[in-house]
Amino acid sequence: MGYFHEGHLELMRRARKECNVVVVSLYVNPAQFALSEDFESYPRDFERDKKLAQNVGVDYLFCPSNAEMYLPDHLTYVEVEKITEKLCGASRPHHFKGVTTIVAKLFNIVQPDKAYFGQKDAQQVVVIKKMVDDLNFDLEIVVVPTVREEDGLAMSSRNVYLSDAEREEALVLSKSLEHAKGLINSGERIAQKIKDEMQELIKSKPKVGLEYISICDNRTLEELSHIRGETLIALAAKVGNARLIDNIVIKV
Amino acid sequence: MGYFHEGHLELMRRARKECNVVVVSLYVNPAQFALSEDFESYPRDFERDKKLAQNVGVDYLFCPSNAEMYLPDHLTYVEVEKITEKLCGASRPHHFKGVTTIVAKLFNIVQPDKAYFGQKDAQQVVVIKKMVDDLNFDLEIVVVPTVREEDGLAMSSRNVYLSDAEREEALVLSKSLEHAKGLINSGERIAQKIKDEMQELIKSKPKVGLEYISICDNRTLEELSHIRGETLIALAAKVGNARLIDNIVIKV
Repeated sequence: MGYFHEGHLELMRRARKECNVVVVSLYVNPAQFALSEDFESYPRDFERDKKLAQNVGVDYLFCPSNAEMYLPDHLTYVEVEKITEKLCGASRPHHFKGVTTIVAKLFNIVQPDKAYFGQKDAQQVVVIKKMVDDLNFDLEIVVVPTVREEDGLAMSSRNVYLSDAEREEALVLSKSLEHAKGLINSGERIAQKIKDEMQELIKSKPKVGLEYISICDNRTLEELSHIRGETLIALAAKVGNARLIDNIVIKV
Repeated sequence: MGYFHEGHLELMRRARKECNVVVVSLYVNPAQFALSEDFESYPRDFERDKKLAQNVGVDYLFCPSNAEMYLPDHLTYVEVEKITEKLCGASRPHHFKGVTTIVAKLFNIVQPDKAYFGQKDAQQVVVIKKMVDDLNFDLEIVVVPTVREEDGLAMSSRNVYLSDAEREEALVLSKSLEHAKGLINSGERIAQKIKDEMQELIKSKPKVGLEYISICDNRTLEELSHIRGETLIALAAKVGNARLIDNIVIKV
């Protein structure tokens, strides 16, 4: 969706290293925003994005108009059921339908051999992988680790919404995930205990409005009572005007 | 869905003439049948189908198993809204969701340049074309005219369900469409008048249970009060155990 940060640039660098031709889509997709959300105010800076992509050696920047992407009588949607109702889907009921539809369109237009997504959007990764498997898209999804600021804040285009004080308190999100990791490394396996400790940490920051903490299977997104296999610990919180998400994946 | 008849073979011949490689899918797709419908009893004869396809010079017959096509945790569906609720969609509410999902999968697996569909399934043609446009599938839909028996009955795998007496009465379906065409050629433009005369003809056959007659725009499937542009006249009826459909397209 543009307003590139180091997270996006890392996807491009990885693709540049692994592929002959690199196409980057730059499209703020209206179908994945609810009316109450920040589609209008979402940060945009085409000239800056263009230079950043050029510097990484991207071959094509695909920036369609809304009129090109959604004809006035657009009627077709791709929908992944169940796993889109959990985590962020619980508070953003049409979000993933917008994501899967636009990604299916982009796949059909660009026809990539590999498509690069950031682990930062953990649920998006799980949903897109499911769509690719279920609809037999002939491509490989490459997941690139979350890029963080030096102090641990996950890179996000929405970080520009944060005041200095909000940004300071937002650090508790990545810190709570690190704390969870520490607990698990020390042998803790009971999900509720880990959630309780994370919640307590986050509660100490009044500007951080926690939306959810999920400790779940990283493929089905089913909540786990005990940590096992490939576990996703994901959270979402409102900090000022920014809705922020972060996560870690732990294999035990 | 197999049990090939001249309609299917005509699609294959047309593809054979226009393409270097011809792939035919043969798959009775459970997702497009309701539980009350004829998925179990739908006619199947693989050896016969194989010979028929070979005789026409088909290169590949793609006959996947249900286990291959739908993994136990299949969650993804492609859905075309609105135009799938009209005509046959009114009585078969999940049918087209099953059709668009399997066709999207087949497109992604086979990756054809051209895909051949019969005009007999008029609404299916409109829905698939819309899906291809909306999701940017990189292929061309080729529509092949309905193939009929000598007496006018549209070819259908379900015609085998008909008794001799039912088959005789079923001829009223194509006859009523021919009658509509005659009326329009004589200058009639009021849709209700045409429907009334078709209905009267069909009512005279007690074994034919009419489900609907639609006179509609052949792109949007909106009902028309006056015939104009490219008009679809479509009908569905139950004759014994067979649900039969037929249609004509008229340009005025």
